[in-house]
Amino acid sequence: MNEYRSPRVALLGAGSVGSQVARLLLERGDEYEARVGARLELAGIGVRNVSARRDVELPQELFTDDLEKLVASSDIVIELMGGIEPARTLLLGALKAGADVVTANKALVAAHGPELHEAAATVGAQLSFEAAVGGAIPIIRPLDASLAGDRVNRVMGIVNGTTNYILDKMHREGASLEEALRVATELGYAEADPTADIEGFDAASKATILASLAFHTTVPVESVYREGITGVTADMVAQAEKDGRVIKLLAICERVNGSGGERVNARVYPALVAADHPLAAVHEAKNAIFVEAEAAGDLMFYGAGAGGIETASAVLGDLVSLARRHIAGGPGTAVTPTANLTIAPMEEVVTRYQVTLEVRDQPGVMSRLAGLFGDSGVSMESIEQRSSDDESLATLVVGTHAAKEADLQSVITALAEHSDVVSVSSFVRAEAV
Amino acid sequence: MNEYRSPRVALLGAGSVGSQVARLLLERGDEYEARVGARLELAGIGVRNVSARRDVELPQELFTDDLEKLVASSDIVIELMGGIEPARTLLLGALKAGADVVTANKALVAAHGPELHEAAATVGAQLSFEAAVGGAIPIIRPLDASLAGDRVNRVMGIVNGTTNYILDKMHREGASLEEALRVATELGYAEADPTADIEGFDAASKATILASLAFHTTVPVESVYREGITGVTADMVAQAEKDGRVIKLLAICERVNGSGGERVNARVYPALVAADHPLAAVHEAKNAIFVEAEAAGDLMFYGAGAGGIETASAVLGDLVSLARRHIAGGPGTAVTPTANLTIAPMEEVVTRYQVTLEVRDQPGVMSRLAGLFGDSGVSMESIEQRSSDDESLATLVVGTHAAKEADLQSVITALAEHSDVVSVSSFVRAEAV
Repeated sequence: MNEYRSPRVALLGAGSVGSQVARLLLERGDEYEARVGARLELAGIGVRNVSARRDVELPQELFTDDLEKLVASSDIVIELMGGIEPARTLLLGALKAGADVVTANKALVAAHGPELHEAAATVGAQLSFEAAVGGAIPIIRPLDASLAGDRVNRVMGIVNGTTNYILDKMHREGASLEEALRVATELGYAEADPTADIEGFDAASKATILASLAFHTTVPVESVYREGITGVTADMVAQAEKDGRVIKLLAICERVNGSGGERVNARVYPALVAADHPLAAVHEAKNAIFVEAEAAGDLMFYGAGAGGIETASAVLGDLVSLARRHIAGGPGTAVTPTANLTIAPMEEVVTRYQVTLEVRDQPGVMSRLAGLFGDSGVSMESIEQRSSDDESLATLVVGTHAAKEADLQSVITALAEHSDVVSVSSFVRAEAV
Repeated sequence: MNEYRSPRVALLGAGSVGSQVARLLLERGDEYEARVGARLELAGIGVRNVSARRDVELPQELFTDDLEKLVASSDIVIELMGGIEPARTLLLGALKAGADVVTANKALVAAHGPELHEAAATVGAQLSFEAAVGGAIPIIRPLDASLAGDRVNRVMGIVNGTTNYILDKMHREGASLEEALRVATELGYAEADPTADIEGFDAASKATILASLAFHTTVPVESVYREGITGVTADMVAQAEKDGRVIKLLAICERVNGSGGERVNARVYPALVAADHPLAAVHEAKNAIFVEAEAAGDLMFYGAGAGGIETASAVLGDLVSLARRHIAGGPGTAVTPTANLTIAPMEEVVTRYQVTLEVRDQPGVMSRLAGLFGDSGVSMESIEQRSSDDESLATLVVGTHAAKEADLQSVITALAEHSDVVSVSSFVRAEAV
């Protein structure tokens, strides 16, 4: 591979996401270099106060409060400050100077997306914002690229973790909104000022972004109908439960076909969801997004919608993708192996097993067979005797703790040869139990 | 925007996926032109027999049996023929000549991925294969790009729709494997020769592709341990049910840390899954893929894993993404609006509602209020009286059929002013019930 200049990366903001991004960039330098084809150089971390305490220990010399200077000398700018200004001005400057930008700032992308995209398009720079919606969940790239040949009819999602945590707690514990909010604040799921979350502003920003991508249409955040969860009472939650439903704060983007021709609408409000709908199973602060497309049908994306390290994953995914482009001049599916790990053979795989045996029903058989498992280093988790049609026989079902495939195979061989055993009827691995 | 030459697109294969790709390319030409910035020109459809009957009516003059000539004159080649040859030779030729390639051919990518990727990398061409795993589900791009900055520890998925249909039927109806397979064949879920599906070869190809992407490592298909579902009996299924589990054919790719250092393993076999695990809720021929990454945590992707039009969605997503790159020289997040649909105001949104009222408990109140709903064009679906603490009052819960927000709002206003009504206690929309 040719030698390329390392892309200089500026990081703006060192809060819960920013500090994780910096840590991973420094710790995984070799991995990223292998994936990108050049070293990613963390040029600096722009913050308001260079001596503030951070969640993560980072080299002090990286910090600077001269954000403009840092941005001006960088090839890729990662913005994790939040808020509109000075983020907007810094990013417009970066894009106009030809730098690529990664941001997790949903409010900024929702309010100033068109302006930022235009600045990028003018000079051929890129703006990536996978982390702005759904935290770690890949949803921006699937909507923008994977579904680029389809026609999306509806996007419906739980896109705010704080309110989902609160509503989930109200459902599961019968808590009042106030109690649930208090716990959410204590655990760090809610901000000291929870307005952006509980009044639906955060979800509305995300609805704007999702609708704009899904419908290839500028959907201004002001056009998003918004109701928060402050009107949801414990009584409403209890009643929904009785009716086999749950209340979820949903962001909904849909095509509206009617007298006005083909139009689109984006909105946010608490809504009833059937208890057996997959969205009802989204608990705690998790997020999930449903997409209904004409050809693809129904798709669902589920995962962590917030959190420092989870959001850092999405930011770093954008960064590595942009850096690859920076080096290779194309998006690339980087299947060129960069890690080349060794393949572990099946014999060394560790999992759990369930073995069903037909045995002669005679005294001591269980302990003899248990001993046989133990001799091969396989630990039993459960053993159950089930009735058999033949009275002289018994069916034993053995569940094991995690064990090596090779050890289990020697157990199976020994069992098949054992005088107590008529046959090994089945053998199945337990992977998600 | 500048004028660009329309990219010439060659389509190889006109089966269930190919015919849908051709139809959508022709029908949605304007939409794709707006999204790409240039017209996509369907240069021809390469098939073995130009006069064979097709699922979809397509212009006869597009068909050709001279595949080499078609490929040689194209900028983007879509391969939907399946099988190794002549697909491999045609695509290697296309890539070496600088054309980009889209393929849904999992067997080819699994067996010859490194060779194809090398051919592409040498000339800077692109190879896209989102449709090769998970049908319509975006999983290749999320693994390759969105998670490019993370460390994937495990991928576990239901990636073969045919076997999931069969196992689901065995669970839901107590059918034997033979019965379930017969129905799957009748309904077109299984091929006349079902070996590739039920013996796990298809899933193993997909495991190879997923593992290679997830671990940045060449994982040869020969290294994938494979067991199909032919050993799964109705008894095993019944026993699993009793134990609160289901049997699913899983493709598992994981990092193995042990005495051999960091290694990876990919395997396919039927395994027990807890009934409350999200994978247990994947019914019929649907697919779902779990990804566990170090920073992102657990992610899940769910959707249609097969089907002509569903798979066409993924193929066309790849095509539009490659064509954008062809035109713009970059991947682009195409948030530049290309459709610019009108925004429908909230008043015109149609959904279902649940309205809770405190009313005076007197004769005729239900019918009077029902009339009030009807007057505004809102159709009631249910009305239920619930006890109230005050004996002179009753709580009414009204569920409506789909109605316009504006109409419902006038009902709410009228209710609030009605002499029977003490208060409108709550009003919530029902979106996923």
